[in-house]
Amino acid sequence: MLYLDEHAINKAVSMKEIIDGIDQAYMIYEDETFHMPTRFQVSESGNTLLLMPCFTEEYITTKLVTVYPNNKWIHQPTIEGLVVLNCNQTGKVKALMDGAYLTGLRTGAVGGSAVRHLAKQDASTLTIIGTGVQGFYQAIAACEERPINKIIVYNRTQGEKVASFIDRLKAAIAPGITICAAKSAEKAVSQAEIVITATTSSEPVLPDKKALLKGKLVIGVGSFQPDMREFPKALYNLASTIIVDTHDAIEESGDIAEPLKKGWIQEKDVQTLSTLIRKQTELPHHKDEAIIFKTTGMALFDAVVAAVIYQAAIQKSEGTWLDGNL
Amino acid sequence: MLYLDEHAINKAVSMKEIIDGIDQAYMIYEDETFHMPTRFQVSESGNTLLLMPCFTEEYITTKLVTVYPNNKWIHQPTIEGLVVLNCNQTGKVKALMDGAYLTGLRTGAVGGSAVRHLAKQDASTLTIIGTGVQGFYQAIAACEERPINKIIVYNRTQGEKVASFIDRLKAAIAPGITICAAKSAEKAVSQAEIVITATTSSEPVLPDKKALLKGKLVIGVGSFQPDMREFPKALYNLASTIIVDTHDAIEESGDIAEPLKKGWIQEKDVQTLSTLIRKQTELPHHKDEAIIFKTTGMALFDAVVAAVIYQAAIQKSEGTWLDGNL
Repeated sequence: MLYLDEHAINKAVSMKEIIDGIDQAYMIYEDETFHMPTRFQVSESGNTLLLMPCFTEEYITTKLVTVYPNNKWIHQPTIEGLVVLNCNQTGKVKALMDGAYLTGLRTGAVGGSAVRHLAKQDASTLTIIGTGVQGFYQAIAACEERPINKIIVYNRTQGEKVASFIDRLKAAIAPGITICAAKSAEKAVSQAEIVITATTSSEPVLPDKKALLKGKLVIGVGSFQPDMREFPKALYNLASTIIVDTHDAIEESGDIAEPLKKGWIQEKDVQTLSTLIRKQTELPHHKDEAIIFKTTGMALFDAVVAAVIYQAAIQKSEGTWLDGNL
Repeated sequence: MLYLDEHAINKAVSMKEIIDGIDQAYMIYEDETFHMPTRFQVSESGNTLLLMPCFTEEYITTKLVTVYPNNKWIHQPTIEGLVVLNCNQTGKVKALMDGAYLTGLRTGAVGGSAVRHLAKQDASTLTIIGTGVQGFYQAIAACEERPINKIIVYNRTQGEKVASFIDRLKAAIAPGITICAAKSAEKAVSQAEIVITATTSSEPVLPDKKALLKGKLVIGVGSFQPDMREFPKALYNLASTIIVDTHDAIEESGDIAEPLKKGWIQEKDVQTLSTLIRKQTELPHHKDEAIIFKTTGMALFDAVVAAVIYQAAIQKSEGTWLDGNL
């Protein structure tokens, strides 16, 4: 049984390989060669335990996540996670991994895959709205896929958090990339070809102005519940198709559920990125339109990324063996 | 995060401490200061993944178990397990433990606790029916609680399996205890004051004869599904009360569900060991009656025993730290 912490995962795989893993997950999603039971959720005193199993041909992957909102008062992460990888031939536990780190990487890679398949080839400017953990990995992954030379960062609350985010990002990406903070979402969006929102807002965080949004690829990472929204009405007027990572995103995210309810979009306008990739469809980039991608994630992403990490770690002899068995 | 394999668990705690843990779990069961959601079960191609979380005041404990029946053909264990212990104040993962070993120990200790509270003080003879993993730990735990000097072993299939069981048991218990194999269940039962059944039989494994069963404490460990039965009809005629570990045992085990359906016992005759312990009731030992204890287990046992192991391991500096944090 192999234990992989953040450091070992980092040494075992690159963001590029994780993005490849996401693309591999999309093909498994299309082929339906997986079994992903509804996640198991138990709440008690405002805290939550989530158990998210997924069966693929080779592995059973279970992500255990705890959400303790009050941890913020003791300056601890509110989300903790562990991923357990069992062999699907024998049931044997093969690996244990830092689940919070894997989640950050794979969510970044879902954005990275969307950039790979949907952004203009020469896109060089990126805006990140939301300077949390997700925003960080989104920036790293996007830079892997396009020749980004400028990142504009915006967060609702300014100050220390934004400065620290920029410092950490500078340390993690290529030195030639300029990173700056914008004073408003309008200013942040106006300068970029790719815009990624990674907040937990219940109100749109992008300006409700067609002129500011057209010609862009807009990726929404934050809203994973029906009462969360990041995209404004104007955005939906700019796109004939909304690309999602899974069919479940339609009900899970307020960025799809609300516009459907309000009649801004029709269900037939929503399609999965996996179908696009399978059909090798390239969406055209019109300067008067926008391309929208919305992800809410799924356990299959965790499962395939965990397998990619495990196999890479074995090849590179990374991680800690917890017993004598392979 | 502390990792505890079989070896480390073994060095950290004694069977006596685990039996104390089971008694502690019974008090938590009586006080209802726990939250044990229905276990989550997913089956695919005849294999099963079980996720069994339990919340206590201090911890969230999740046992992940895989059941791969075909592993027997490749001479591998059919059941694999991992126990994850999270702090219930912060959600942080505190420990990971070998779940198959913990399950063996704690199931042994549930039997040991029944021996502690229900057997005659001077009981010195023990019969174990079923020479699997469970039978092994039942024998060890029973020897902790009474001055056992003779163990009689019986298994439906004789030969190598029984001999190997006896060898392993001899190595694990006090040298003064005689262990021998019986040729039939009748012979095995006739010689003992305490009889423990640990099989997965669908038919009674004890002789259906009152004369052979009276005066004994009979503990049933094996049947955990309604179509499994170890106890014969004659046994129920010897006891006015059936003691169970949890209320769920009534529906879960064929040893309680079937007799209820057939009218051999009434639901009012079934009571939990926890109630007995709480009320400090001592059952009388009549030579013409039997005392029956039936366990099907529960996640709360795993939770309390995992906490006992974790705390003992910290005190004795056992186990492997997987990161720098306590």
